[in-house]
Formats: sequence, structure tokens, C-alpha cells
Amino acid sequence: MRTKRPEQADKILCVAARLFATHRFHEARMEDIAAAAEVGKGTLYRYFKDKEELYLALLDRAAEGLLRRIDEELADADGPRGKLEAMIRAILDFLSANPYLFDVATHAEALARPGSLASWKKLRETNTRRTLDIVEEGRQAGLWDIPDPETPVLMLLGGLRAVLRFGSSTRPAELAPRILEDFLHGADRKAAACGKRPRALEVGQG
Amino acid sequence: MRTKRPEQADKILCVAARLFATHRFHEARMEDIAAAAEVGKGTLYRYFKDKEELYLALLDRAAEGLLRRIDEELADADGPRGKLEAMIRAILDFLSANPYLFDVATHAEALARPGSLASWKKLRETNTRRTLDIVEEGRQAGLWDIPDPETPVLMLLGGLRAVLRFGSSTRPAELAPRILEDFLHGADRKAAACGKRPRALEVGQG
Repeated sequence: MRTKRPEQADKILCVAARLFATHRFHEARMEDIAAAAEVGKGTLYRYFKDKEELYLALLDRAAEGLLRRIDEELADADGPRGKLEAMIRAILDFLSANPYLFDVATHAEALARPGSLASWKKLRETNTRRTLDIVEEGRQAGLWDIPDPETPVLMLLGGLRAVLRFGSSTRPAELAPRILEDFLHGADRKAAACGKRPRALEVGQG
Repeated sequence: MRTKRPEQADKILCVAARLFATHRFHEARMEDIAAAAEVGKGTLYRYFKDKEELYLALLDRAAEGLLRRIDEELADADGPRGKLEAMIRAILDFLSANPYLFDVATHAEALARPGSLASWKKLRETNTRRTLDIVEEGRQAGLWDIPDPETPVLMLLGGLRAVLRFGSSTRPAELAPRILEDFLHGADRKAAACGKRPRALEVGQG
């Protein structure tokens, strides 16, 4: 058997990503992927023994790509507030450019093959931990006071998924700063005025 | 062929829901469901021709149940703020009590059978529209000013999913008012102090 070359695998995955962007999992066939990648079907099956394996490899590659993208954005960001915005922007940009990843992740999740979602789970956990670290950094710097940050951080990251999946495709250019502003200070612009913010005690009184 | 009785179908779905709560889709077998519902396998297959059909029926039933629950909570709620909190509470309570629904929805999504997710999609769209209506009601009542509410509403509803799916299972009792407070006024409690909230212009400056 001939050896596998990483560049070849990468080329196949790149082509498959483009194909899955316009076809659902059940529609895209291995022969289409082979043809688009300009390799024989035999070669394709040497790299990925079935469509599911290719799917999971695609997910691993995407998770790595997003983590790398976040690293790059964070390296350029200034201060905790800049880092939070960079995190939001990286996630929005990467998943806007690769919307098929939601389908891929959903399908992989339904496969129930043990460990099939390990890379996606790691991505989620890494993003949650990093965001919590930035929130803590901001607290230490006296920038904000976010008690029990787990819930707001999950709301933030889970909310991004919904905006990407179900929001209108024409997204405002300045979406990341808007989402950060809402996260820190709320969606209600009226509360910006002095003294308008209700005290916690008044919560839930209609 | 004997006629199908709605109570019988309901009993089977109720039993299946309990079974899927502790087993993944691939693990739960039709014979287990028949045995737990105390019906013969033949009877089960008269109601649901395969496990996928049963799954989709379960999803329809759950979507109806959640919509009904939201209706009830909204009927008891006072004013737009009370309604927003009721909406959040209904979603948190219903999905906390039926956590298997996420697996069911994920699997149904991956089935790619046309229309398979119609009831789930309707649920999401109804919840989004209702939340937007409440936000508008509050705006008209002068309670708040939430410009372009689509993004914050998607962030809110998508965030709830993440809190339910990935948050710690020991959730604070007063989670709904906390989430509402964060939604309206932000996670940063420091901003509550007069004059601390940065102006929109300062967003993104690190």
C-alpha cells in the first residue's frame, strides 16, 4: 500500500468542505468528493475508509482551524475587553465563512461513534475556559464585576451559535462590538442613562 | 387492521421519552419500548413504522408541550418584563425536565428526512417571534430601548440552549431572573453604578 501524504489528505478535506457547503451529508457522495479532489476513488478510500470518517476528519480540521484563528486574534488584541471582542469576532468570522460546519457537527453528534465529537467538545471547552480566563483577567484589572461568570459566558458562546445559524445572513458589519456591548451592559440602551438600571431586588416584578 | 387510539400513542410516546432519557437513540430498541409500554411489538409498529418515526413523533409532542407550557406561563405573567422572565423560565424548566430532547432533536436533524424537523423549527420560530413581540411591547410601554432586537433575542434563546446543554447540572434557583437581568442590563454589575457604562463609541477600543 502506498503511503498517505498529509498534503493529499488536506487537499481532499478542503474539497470536501466546499462540497458539503452546498450539499447535505446524505447528498454528497464519495465519488463526487474523489472527482472534485482529482483523485481516484481508491485513493480517497485509502485516506478515509468511509464518509463518516471523512466527516470526522473535517470536523477535527475545522476545530483546529478555529482554535488557531482565535489564537491569532487574541495575540493581536489589547486588554481584556479587546480580547473578548477578538474572541467573538473570530468565532463569528470563522463560522460565517464555513457555515456547513454546523451540519457536519450535527451529523457527527448523531453518529454516536465513541469519541466522534472529541475535537468539537475540546473546542467548546477551550473556548469556554479561555473566555472565563479573560473575564477573570478583566475582574483583576478592575474593568468589570461579573459574578458567577459561567452562566453569562455560556449565554454568550451559545448565543453566537444561534446568531450564526438562525440570524439573517446580512449581518451588520459591527456585530462583534455590539454583542460585546450587550454582554457587558445589556441590550437595553435606556439603562445607559444614569440611575435607570433597576436593582437586582426589583427583578421579576413585571 | 385495528384502529389507532390517541391515548395508546400517547402512552407509548411517554414511555419512549423516559427510555430515551437514559439511553441514546442507537441503544434504545423498539422491543424495549414495546415492553416498557406493555404493548406487543406488532402494536408498536402499527403506531410507528420505525424508530425514526417514533423519534419524530416524540419531537412533535415535545414541541407542542413546550409551546403549551410557555402559553400557560405567559398567561400568568405581569407586564413585558414579567413575560420575558416567564418565557425564560418556561424554556429552562421544560428542557431541564426533558434533557433527552436535545439528543432527539440532534438525531432528527441529522436524519435529513424532508420536513423531519418541522415542529422543532416551528417551535424556534414561534419562540423568537413571541420574544420579539414582548420586546416591542416593552418598547411601546417605555420600559426599555433595544435597537435591532433580532440579534439580542437570538443571543438570549441560543444562550439558554447552551446553559441547559453544557452548564453545571446544579443550577441556581433564581436562574431565570439572573438571565433576564443580564439580557437587559449586562453581566457587568459594576456598570450599575452611575456613569460607569461606556458609550457605544468607545466599544472595541480594548
